[in-house]
Amino acid sequence: MAEPRRAYDDKLARILRTAASIFADKGYHEASIRDISRATGISLSGLYYYFGSKEELLFLIQDHCFTTLLENLDRLLAQEADPLVRFRLMVENHLRFFVNNMKEMKVLSHELDSLTGEYGQIVNGKKRRYTETCGIVLQALAPAGSTIDSRVAVFALFGMMNWIYNWYHPERDVPVSKLAEDLGQLFLRGYLSGEAGDRAGWSSPFSVEPSPSIWRT
Amino acid sequence: MAEPRRAYDDKLARILRTAASIFADKGYHEASIRDISRATGISLSGLYYYFGSKEELLFLIQDHCFTTLLENLDRLLAQEADPLVRFRLMVENHLRFFVNNMKEMKVLSHELDSLTGEYGQIVNGKKRRYTETCGIVLQALAPAGSTIDSRVAVFALFGMMNWIYNWYHPERDVPVSKLAEDLGQLFLRGYLSGEAGDRAGWSSPFSVEPSPSIWRT
Repeated sequence: MAEPRRAYDDKLARILRTAASIFADKGYHEASIRDISRATGISLSGLYYYFGSKEELLFLIQDHCFTTLLENLDRLLAQEADPLVRFRLMVENHLRFFVNNMKEMKVLSHELDSLTGEYGQIVNGKKRRYTETCGIVLQALAPAGSTIDSRVAVFALFGMMNWIYNWYHPERDVPVSKLAEDLGQLFLRGYLSGEAGDRAGWSSPFSVEPSPSIWRT
Repeated sequence: MAEPRRAYDDKLARILRTAASIFADKGYHEASIRDISRATGISLSGLYYYFGSKEELLFLIQDHCFTTLLENLDRLLAQEADPLVRFRLMVENHLRFFVNNMKEMKVLSHELDSLTGEYGQIVNGKKRRYTETCGIVLQALAPAGSTIDSRVAVFALFGMMNWIYNWYHPERDVPVSKLAEDLGQLFLRGYLSGEAGDRAGWSSPFSVEPSPSIWRT
């Protein structure tokens, strides 16, 4: 009985990978099931054997991404108690995942709001669990007296890492290992050390508030 | 003769602001000129007096955003020689712009590839100029012997700041001035200081390379 299941899974994985690529290139709303049929060589009725709607397809992609990311992280963290090593495992896991799945990353970033009802709830729940887990890893590292807001810290780190889909080209830029090292060091030094930053004189607060929308004259 | 021009500009600004909001909520490809007509109360023919196509409308939004961002930054930097103050002005200008124009920011991030031909070239040219200017500000701060790649540094900073449109809610989260201070400090400490990070033992390189796509079993 294992063979048919395996064949089912392999074919579904191929459909999801192709759909993610098409969603990333054309946008979810622009893309049609017909595009996916053409790209996979699977008939429309063949595709609808695997999912009931385009939204379910988007859900399967997003759910598979967050589930993989979260399971990998949980597995890595379960083996390790040292806060610094845990931080490093988290950064490596996140970047490894995203560098190797840039199309999926674009779909995750751009189509967060496209899932409605239960689909949205399930994916948002996993996203929240992932953010919480990373937040716990960061909190264990926070120096005594750190004034940096914990939510700002975790999303600053996510931003640094996730933004790579907008600029990073493995064939033109630094190798992925150097990318991970630079991003990890930039964040960690900034998060751990007050000295150099304090010497740099950030005494007065930033004044970002007053500016109006760009459209007002 | 000034009045008609002013009226023209005000109405165009209103159209662009409304269109940016609709593009951000529905996605550029999903949104129609009819949606914008309904939201602005301006007839279709009235709208086509201001732009020739939906793509030109997207171009006008993106071009106006990057032009404003760039002009503001050039003006601020022209008055200042101190590298640290220049860095701070850059971060403040960037965050002030994006916090006050979150819808536009989403449109800029998601629809970078939707502009074709000359439209795309013009906007990409301004984007490149902006990235270069920020890169120069960072290079002036780089400590002797810094090993962090300059392209990684500038896009890490952009990523930290730009990602806020995915999570930051001014009414629920820390105030904008605290957001700017935390992000600015996180980056600056990380960029300037080797000490704490080096003590933390980043001796062996990250190993992000080997992982396959998530879809392979």
